[in-house]
Amino acid sequence: MKLFRKVAIVGTGLIGGSIASAIKRHGLAECVVGVSRHKETLLRAKKKGMIDEGSQDLRIIKNADLLVIATPVRTIEKLSSAIARIIPGDCIVIDVGSTKEAIAQRCDKAFTRYVGTHPLAGSEKRGVAYAEAGLFKNSLCILTPTSKTDTKALRVVKKLWRSIGADIVEMSPSAHDKMLAFISHLPHVVAFCLMAAVPATLLRYAPASLKEATRVAASDSILWRDILLSNSNNIIRSIGVFERMLSRVKSAAKRNQAKLLERIFRDAKFKRELLDGYRNRRSGGRR
Amino acid sequence: MKLFRKVAIVGTGLIGGSIASAIKRHGLAECVVGVSRHKETLLRAKKKGMIDEGSQDLRIIKNADLLVIATPVRTIEKLSSAIARIIPGDCIVIDVGSTKEAIAQRCDKAFTRYVGTHPLAGSEKRGVAYAEAGLFKNSLCILTPTSKTDTKALRVVKKLWRSIGADIVEMSPSAHDKMLAFISHLPHVVAFCLMAAVPATLLRYAPASLKEATRVAASDSILWRDILLSNSNNIIRSIGVFERMLSRVKSAAKRNQAKLLERIFRDAKFKRELLDGYRNRRSGGRR
Repeated sequence: MKLFRKVAIVGTGLIGGSIASAIKRHGLAECVVGVSRHKETLLRAKKKGMIDEGSQDLRIIKNADLLVIATPVRTIEKLSSAIARIIPGDCIVIDVGSTKEAIAQRCDKAFTRYVGTHPLAGSEKRGVAYAEAGLFKNSLCILTPTSKTDTKALRVVKKLWRSIGADIVEMSPSAHDKMLAFISHLPHVVAFCLMAAVPATLLRYAPASLKEATRVAASDSILWRDILLSNSNNIIRSIGVFERMLSRVKSAAKRNQAKLLERIFRDAKFKRELLDGYRNRRSGGRR
Repeated sequence: MKLFRKVAIVGTGLIGGSIASAIKRHGLAECVVGVSRHKETLLRAKKKGMIDEGSQDLRIIKNADLLVIATPVRTIEKLSSAIARIIPGDCIVIDVGSTKEAIAQRCDKAFTRYVGTHPLAGSEKRGVAYAEAGLFKNSLCILTPTSKTDTKALRVVKKLWRSIGADIVEMSPSAHDKMLAFISHLPHVVAFCLMAAVPATLLRYAPASLKEATRVAASDSILWRDILLSNSNNIIRSIGVFERMLSRVKSAAKRNQAKLLERIFRDAKFKRELLDGYRNRRSGGRR
């Protein structure tokens, strides 16, 4: 069943390209067009059959009835007015940004039928080369409706994400940002800092513990710069909580407090095993 | 070729059991015996053909010409005198502890032919159930000879590790401990603290970034308590370096310093890609 007539994807990278590809595979739209700053990306997306047409010119999005913004967070904010000038007033607009509060404020103003979404999928990899229709299968997508959200548009967007394989959770943009600060933004910051802390000369000896702990440090720096700036208060708070744990361990090691160290590590192990329990029920996305 | 007549493994868990198993598979000894506090562990090890005989009584180690201590770090220090009273004076003694300086000081006194070793293999898993002969294949084993090390014993120990698949790097116990504080102990501490910092109610939404960053938080708490206490100065120093990186990021986020954030993340990404280059040449161990 065709959910849409014309879908326009702005930013045909890993996530945008995968959405385009999934929409095509499931036959959800009559036509999918893509916008990218890079000609090569568009050629590749078209060659892989992810889009029907591509352009570096935003005007290709005109007459779309679904517009997907899949760019770094701050680019979403910058592009919103330009997009609003081109698309029809009743076009449903979604974004896939990793932070939601600032974007929702902006997009609720710019568009009449905006729905914030955040698929917990993707990885440290970036670009259309890694895009694939199956990326969202068994993943979780967070929808962040506000008091301004059009209920019919919300229903269509739910249908879209479910059709391409995602389970849906709804929460407010603010609850989303507080949560992501802990479960995603903090682990990324920690990975970046861990990588920065380890002397380069020792990298050749790195055991799997270091490799795994820092995998996401290879993530795109622009993407993560934007996430940090757009969710800074929550992230600073989560770093603060983490720092307090770190100084507990440091102080226990300094004072030779065996029992305390053992308890901290045992509690962490318990929580990690809890996490693994959830993992077994859901393969989960990366970001 | 038989390198040894009788090998005795004290602590037949993941590492001890895997060494026993590898020695049997490669026919490096006429006989392998194991010591464990747990009867069940010994039964399992015997049933899997990892050891010829097992006992909860340390006296089974008598007449060994290779003695492997594969217990948590502080247990090594506790057991050394008891072991020294039973084994022949010319028995080669190795340990597989994750810290080396304190152990080397103790064991160089307790034994005439001690060689410190640290196989960078294993995982957050523990116990004989996960032991396997192939654990050290393509892994790295660090040997930490001192001025007191018997050169013939060192040669035999190298042969042992190479025979069961490990590549060898030599360094002083102190260099080892400084290095491991960064490449292994810090990532573990960070994983424990990350797990402690994330509210339990959010665990069900955990994306892959959090799962991977905290995998080693499921490691054994006794093992890691001992590692922290036995390498506390170096670990406290590495935590300090990491904390400074963390506060740079926090302050840049607070002050909206886009360029600085981007540079920190880009540098981390560069180092992570360097690490991945090494990874391709060596599968590497976990711990």
